[in-house]
Amino acid sequence: MSEFANERIVYFNGQYIPESQALVPYRERSFIFGDGAFDLTRTFNHTIFKLDEHIERLYYSMRALRLDAGISAEEITDITRIVVEKNLHLLDADEDYWVGQRVTRGVNKVDGDNWNHYGPTVIVECVPMPIKERAHYYRDGVPVVIPSVRRTTPDALTPRAKTHNYLNMIVAELEVKAHDSNNWAVLLDHNGNLCEGMGSNIFVVRNGVLLTPREQFVLPGISRQTVIDLAAELGIPCQQTDIDLFDGYNADEAFITSTSLCICPVTSINGAVIGDGTVYGPITQRLIDAYVELVSCDFIQQYLDALK
Amino acid sequence: MSEFANERIVYFNGQYIPESQALVPYRERSFIFGDGAFDLTRTFNHTIFKLDEHIERLYYSMRALRLDAGISAEEITDITRIVVEKNLHLLDADEDYWVGQRVTRGVNKVDGDNWNHYGPTVIVECVPMPIKERAHYYRDGVPVVIPSVRRTTPDALTPRAKTHNYLNMIVAELEVKAHDSNNWAVLLDHNGNLCEGMGSNIFVVRNGVLLTPREQFVLPGISRQTVIDLAAELGIPCQQTDIDLFDGYNADEAFITSTSLCICPVTSINGAVIGDGTVYGPITQRLIDAYVELVSCDFIQQYLDALK
Amino acid sequence: MSEFANERIVYFNGQYIPESQALVPYRERSFIFGDGAFDLTRTFNHTIFKLDEHIERLYYSMRALRLDAGISAEEITDITRIVVEKNLHLLDADEDYWVGQRVTRGVNKVDGDNWNHYGPTVIVECVPMPIKERAHYYRDGVPVVIPSVRRTTPDALTPRAKTHNYLNMIVAELEVKAHDSNNWAVLLDHNGNLCEGMGSNIFVVRNGVLLTPREQFVLPGISRQTVIDLAAELGIPCQQTDIDLFDGYNADEAFITSTSLCICPVTSINGAVIGDGTVYGPITQRLIDAYVELVSCDFIQQYLDALK
Amino acid sequence: MSEFANERIVYFNGQYIPESQALVPYRERSFIFGDGAFDLTRTFNHTIFKLDEHIERLYYSMRALRLDAGISAEEITDITRIVVEKNLHLLDADEDYWVGQRVTRGVNKVDGDNWNHYGPTVIVECVPMPIKERAHYYRDGVPVVIPSVRRTTPDALTPRAKTHNYLNMIVAELEVKAHDSNNWAVLLDHNGNLCEGMGSNIFVVRNGVLLTPREQFVLPGISRQTVIDLAAELGIPCQQTDIDLFDGYNADEAFITSTSLCICPVTSINGAVIGDGTVYGPITQRLIDAYVELVSCDFIQQYLDALK
Amino acid sequence: MSEFANERIVYFNGQYIPESQALVPYRERSFIFGDGAFDLTRTFNHTIFKLDEHIERLYYSMRALRLDAGISAEEITDITRIVVEKNLHLLDADEDYWVGQRVTRGVNKVDGDNWNHYGPTVIVECVPMPIKERAHYYRDGVPVVIPSVRRTTPDALTPRAKTHNYLNMIVAELEVKAHDSNNWAVLLDHNGNLCEGMGSNIFVVRNGVLLTPREQFVLPGISRQTVIDLAAELGIPCQQTDIDLFDGYNADEAFITSTSLCICPVTSINGAVIGDGTVYGPITQRLIDAYVELVSCDFIQQYLDALK
Amino acid sequence: MSEFANERIVYFNGQYIPESQALVPYRERSFIFGDGAFDLTRTFNHTIFKLDEHIERLYYSMRALRLDAGISAEEITDITRIVVEKNLHLLDADEDYWVGQRVTRGVNKVDGDNWNHYGPTVIVECVPMPIKERAHYYRDGVPVVIPSVRRTTPDALTPRAKTHNYLNMIVAELEVKAHDSNNWAVLLDHNGNLCEGMGSNIFVVRNGVLLTPREQFVLPGISRQTVIDLAAELGIPCQQTDIDLFDGYNADEAFITSTSLCICPVTSINGAVIGDGTVYGPITQRLIDAYVELVSCDFIQQYLDALK
Repeated sequence: MSEFANERIVYFNGQYIPESQALVPYRERSFIFGDGAFDLTRTFNHTIFKLDEHIERLYYSMRALRLDAGISAEEITDITRIVVEKNLHLLDADEDYWVGQRVTRGVNKVDGDNWNHYGPTVIVECVPMPIKERAHYYRDGVPVVIPSVRRTTPDALTPRAKTHNYLNMIVAELEVKAHDSNNWAVLLDHNGNLCEGMGSNIFVVRNGVLLTPREQFVLPGISRQTVIDLAAELGIPCQQTDIDLFDGYNADEAFITSTSLCICPVTSINGAVIGDGTVYGPITQRLIDAYVELVSCDFIQQYLDALK
Repeated sequence: MSEFANERIVYFNGQYIPESQALVPYRERSFIFGDGAFDLTRTFNHTIFKLDEHIERLYYSMRALRLDAGISAEEITDITRIVVEKNLHLLDADEDYWVGQRVTRGVNKVDGDNWNHYGPTVIVECVPMPIKERAHYYRDGVPVVIPSVRRTTPDALTPRAKTHNYLNMIVAELEVKAHDSNNWAVLLDHNGNLCEGMGSNIFVVRNGVLLTPREQFVLPGISRQTVIDLAAELGIPCQQTDIDLFDGYNADEAFITSTSLCICPVTSINGAVIGDGTVYGPITQRLIDAYVELVSCDFIQQYLDALK
Repeated sequence: MSEFANERIVYFNGQYIPESQALVPYRERSFIFGDGAFDLTRTFNHTIFKLDEHIERLYYSMRALRLDAGISAEEITDITRIVVEKNLHLLDADEDYWVGQRVTRGVNKVDGDNWNHYGPTVIVECVPMPIKERAHYYRDGVPVVIPSVRRTTPDALTPRAKTHNYLNMIVAELEVKAHDSNNWAVLLDHNGNLCEGMGSNIFVVRNGVLLTPREQFVLPGISRQTVIDLAAELGIPCQQTDIDLFDGYNADEAFITSTSLCICPVTSINGAVIGDGTVYGPITQRLIDAYVELVSCDFIQQYLDALK
Repeated sequence: MSEFANERIVYFNGQYIPESQALVPYRERSFIFGDGAFDLTRTFNHTIFKLDEHIERLYYSMRALRLDAGISAEEITDITRIVVEKNLHLLDADEDYWVGQRVTRGVNKVDGDNWNHYGPTVIVECVPMPIKERAHYYRDGVPVVIPSVRRTTPDALTPRAKTHNYLNMIVAELEVKAHDSNNWAVLLDHNGNLCEGMGSNIFVVRNGVLLTPREQFVLPGISRQTVIDLAAELGIPCQQTDIDLFDGYNADEAFITSTSLCICPVTSINGAVIGDGTVYGPITQRLIDAYVELVSCDFIQQYLDALK
Repeated sequence: MSEFANERIVYFNGQYIPESQALVPYRERSFIFGDGAFDLTRTFNHTIFKLDEHIERLYYSMRALRLDAGISAEEITDITRIVVEKNLHLLDADEDYWVGQRVTRGVNKVDGDNWNHYGPTVIVECVPMPIKERAHYYRDGVPVVIPSVRRTTPDALTPRAKTHNYLNMIVAELEVKAHDSNNWAVLLDHNGNLCEGMGSNIFVVRNGVLLTPREQFVLPGISRQTVIDLAAELGIPCQQTDIDLFDGYNADEAFITSTSLCICPVTSINGAVIGDGTVYGPITQRLIDAYVELVSCDFIQQYLDALK
Repeated sequence: MSEFANERIVYFNGQYIPESQALVPYRERSFIFGDGAFDLTRTFNHTIFKLDEHIERLYYSMRALRLDAGISAEEITDITRIVVEKNLHLLDADEDYWVGQRVTRGVNKVDGDNWNHYGPTVIVECVPMPIKERAHYYRDGVPVVIPSVRRTTPDALTPRAKTHNYLNMIVAELEVKAHDSNNWAVLLDHNGNLCEGMGSNIFVVRNGVLLTPREQFVLPGISRQTVIDLAAELGIPCQQTDIDLFDGYNADEAFITSTSLCICPVTSINGAVIGDGTVYGPITQRLIDAYVELVSCDFIQQYLDALK
């Protein structure tokens, strides 16, 4: 036990074990097929953000995949709290965790197998957020680049489920990062509308109105919903609608949202400067301020501090 | 060592180890993203079938994913032969192996990790083919059912790469198996043309001409190519072209091909009987005979024997 | 005349005649081309439901087909009332009529014809509703199945016109009924969104919100509109929007609407149970109660009684 | 009997009866749904053209609709010959018949019906060809106009089946005939390629090569196939491929084919003159000559004579 | 100077010169590529209409093309006022000007060039509106015809930017004008929805509701926006939504809007009469009245006077 | 005259004038709408390449636009030869000309115009090829980058006509050049297939087979056709077919063709190295050798010499 004293604990099929022992058979369906769903929230000041909403979305994803966790939403919620608690001591004050739940369809049994577990695999984990790696985006803004790869169509694999099938996104990311590793891919959907990046939603501001793609073509981000709700509170009009690169190039401001990034300003799309190049536009700033207040954590400062 | 005497051996990142020890960290990119490619051939009478073609296709898949195995095609070929050799003693005479290679992008390193391996994961495996489970298809023919789920478009995720992202196929299969677990899903592509099932290609025969979907929308199956080559040798005209359900309902014969199935007759599509309901139509039979001769293995009999 | 004493009367090109005498030349354009439009309402307790709305829709359909009935909406309305009146005596108390108007482009004249009528054919009819045949859906719920056949695109043949061209729907229905004759087809439109079944609209309930496909891709059902209106009265939020199978699989409740069915609960989509499998979910029940009150007829009981 | 002495005879569900007695219940599925298939050939000098090919296509159409005629192809062939024979005496020497077979799904039984026939309806008919009405096209050429209405997609309702659902075509025709009743509609398919008109295929000639749309998007016309075969015999290269308006506007020659028209020259598309405006271009003429020889009937002269 | 006394003055790259001297090198990028953006307003009673809105839209167009005018919006606004002022003396009292700004990417320099200007070309012009030529539309209504040519998709070339690439529109117009030179083309977008004509937006009225295509697929006309604003003031419900030919054929009223036409009634679509054929329907008339009041100019009378 | 002694001569509406005098009214339709067509060939050793083929294509483009040059192909051919002759004395021995013909729809007349020419504008020009600017591509290979902008669909504006509407291409180019000005855009068509760049076609080599997009989605390049013909002569199999990025990433070799570039090797697509990174692969080299022989000009050396 002592050798794992400094190691994170993960919930793994009924047990709380050191992360390095959380191993899956190479024939797990999620390893060979990506046949799983997951969700991911974060802590702010070591407190979990909107866990219920994330767990609810996890179960939506699973229903879309006809995947039965064999465990209730309440149980996974409790387990998540326990996992975070067991790992908090490893965090520095200025750090926070990504907190995730993963459910897969487990191992396909074949003759001669010697695995110790069949049926769904359930994992609850936390890992430190990559604050330092992404900090520069808060200083310089995110350079969004649109890859030629399009997002999978909803009638093939719905973007609304958060699954272990990420190759569409990964190949898109590799395409834009081949130019510059800081580039951030935001894909177009099959109709040519802006949709989403790997784990991130996009918003643009035009003439005081906040615009973000319709839910049908994107993962309905909890942070995205948080921004929509904050906008309503602040009286900023917000539309969920089809937007495309004309809106992007003519945006006054733009930002992406994600669990870990919350709100992160975008300063260019395909190399074209957004607005006048200001990193934090006025509406972006108002939403950030409201977000910071909501989560009681100045996440902007948290990122910027990591640059020092 | 003795405890693993009856266990299959798998190549795993440089080592030949018992299958039950071939475990991957739960944070392997292929587990959390399906970020890997694979290929799969089979043995006939314990001899590997067209290994070079399969390895070539594996490298095509990897290039499409910008995935570097860190090992040459020649090395993987050699490893594959060794793996099969090490496991042959576990096979009965009437059994054969699926023989697979898997390459993934490995583990994403995060702070505090204690994994023992980063960089690509390379696995070479063999597992017994599910002869008994599928034997009835050779007696009764395969009931093909077209799901409402469409195959992913090539501009989102190319069907030509054999990857660890199978949810599009899995959800499609679950849809048709909800009616009857024997149903075999063959998807339509985005244009409404017949394309492929999970690991299987489809052929129909109309007026003496063999028709199969164009490569752009399907995995270019080695067995599919084998049938195309055999047809050429037998003087059976064969077209790779767009075909749809009109061709399906008006087919005189139909069959699917896959590594393990070789050629397996289809007797209905969406419940509509193909031709006059004969399981083995004349052109299907000629191609099977030629296939059996090519591989020196009466795979039809191999399957049918398992029904006894 | 006496031989037709127990026969229904139909309006047929200016005359009220026994149904069995309402015959059309085999070269009628609606027989050879389906070149006609129709509409269909029902009675509740022998009273016609929203006749004006149905007649208005009939004329919309005709305009889309450039089809001139040669008779005014008012005249057809009057005729409809007369036809029902003439046939009411044939109904039992627990029965009701489907009441339909049909207008076709008539017979194409060719040399040597001996037909007695050219110009548009106008028919007004009533037939007993298939209460017994469909009663089990009110006990068990409707098992919706999505066929692979897609609904015709609006730029080819608008789904908003109710025409005599039903093969798209019929082939779709035959596809799903090949698995189980109780299955109820609901098609996807060209974009992969849920649209409609043969004469039926679909609604799903998610988190207390009623969702139904946009009118552009479906027949704007009068029952559909009735539900939308009732929802407004009951304060149930309702959106006409693009919905797809993600919404279907994650629905808390679902139901179909049609002239004859009014509101009929859906308990599964593609074999996946809706919500927790309850046949009558709370919002469905509230809408049914309001519908029953509106039409002064407990149609649920009417159907269930037929099971006895 | 004498009153029908000058009337055509039609085969109608087992009987040979005068055409004016061939009546169907208004509730026949083909009247209310267009739920039927048909085929149509013609006579040349009172001899039926390629009857076997037409009957074969009829059965393809029926399989696509899951429609069972309850009668064999051989029987319908025999009946067709008998029907023509019974009606030949009504033809003048310079006239010819359209000869058609129609199979529908018959009447849906409802309570209280008094029809005398359920099950499929089978009709075999012949009607005089509209030689006079179309003669001017052979003098002036056909002015093809492309409507805005697109042909139904194969995944909704396959254009390859010849069915009683013609509204897509009819609405398209009415659109172009609203400008000039001589206009001839040729629709684009969903991809924007030229496909077909109501009962007619299109060919264009560019630089000595004959081009016609691929079969997947059009009815595979017997006359179309005849032209393809004749071209092969004459050594005129012919491609079945995707063609669009660029090919149309740049065609040197163009023509349509149909059962009755055989080969009819096109002189303009959307008002743009084809080639230099010559009605009979050299390749069109060669094909017509070969066609005339094949059918032993100078159909051009037959049409032109009707202008006198 | 005297020779140009009766000639209009144009702003051309920094100078105010007679129109006939405003010449561009044949190798200007807008001449060889259409590589420019423009905008166009009109005067009412010699007063410029909504100049700021037009200039704002010009800059949106330029951003979509990454085209830098090298001059501010304020400067172009001032120049525009000056240009109009310099040319007003050439107008009769009943005439008005189209007032346009054009910005192009200038000349591509090649070796040996002798042009006197590189960098962006900026032109501000005014030309008399074609009142007489279009006057009959106000008497008879516009006959809208839908060409087979579809509008370019937003992911290829956004319709929201007003550019010097008009061939898509021009070819569409030539198609419908080949039938009758009075025909007015309104294109369908890629999805088959009504979108726009050459410089004109379309509105239809159905059951008291004003409908117009969504902005994403059309140029966001200033006149279109004016109508939307006026409708709001008048309490006429107005939806920006997907509309198609079903709405067109079933419209009670319809009209087009453009800078010069303001509101011009449509009386037919594809030859089908709108409503009962009344040129000025009640809602159209109310909007015209409000428009006339807004611009203090009875533009209807202005057009009709030109018929005398 | 002397002042233009060193200036190129251009044919301009009937006259041979110094290039700097070839000016068009700013209201020329090609300036304001891009309403023109053009073609472009080059000289090799000061001899014009395949002029007839280029002129033929020009007339195809014009027919697609319904644009009448008012002058015959023979006349333009003669003029072209004269223009080149008049300008040859300005070329150095190692230079060559681009030789172009441009036809536009001329000026729209409005009241008060003082232009000296209405009707079509015809220009024949030659300009020195940008040998030096592009020379590095022959040393390093072309880095192809796929923009997110898709090529216009053939049903909106056919890519087969070479027109003055280039914004689709220009915006695509600007997108990829925003990353690196050496990047070369090759667009995908609406279906996601590789199509073409600005004035260039693409070929890939896979397993000894030459693949290039079908003509329907690209300008049918004369150099493209030259390569196809040379491949036939050399016995290199060549297919005109749908190819996509899977083919791109798995190509052994790739190159682009254009009038000026002839054959120029591609060494990467989206940053992924083609084959093993060799600039001149074996099949590319064979085709170049044959091309050099055909045109009697070592164009590779011509470009490489410019690097010195």
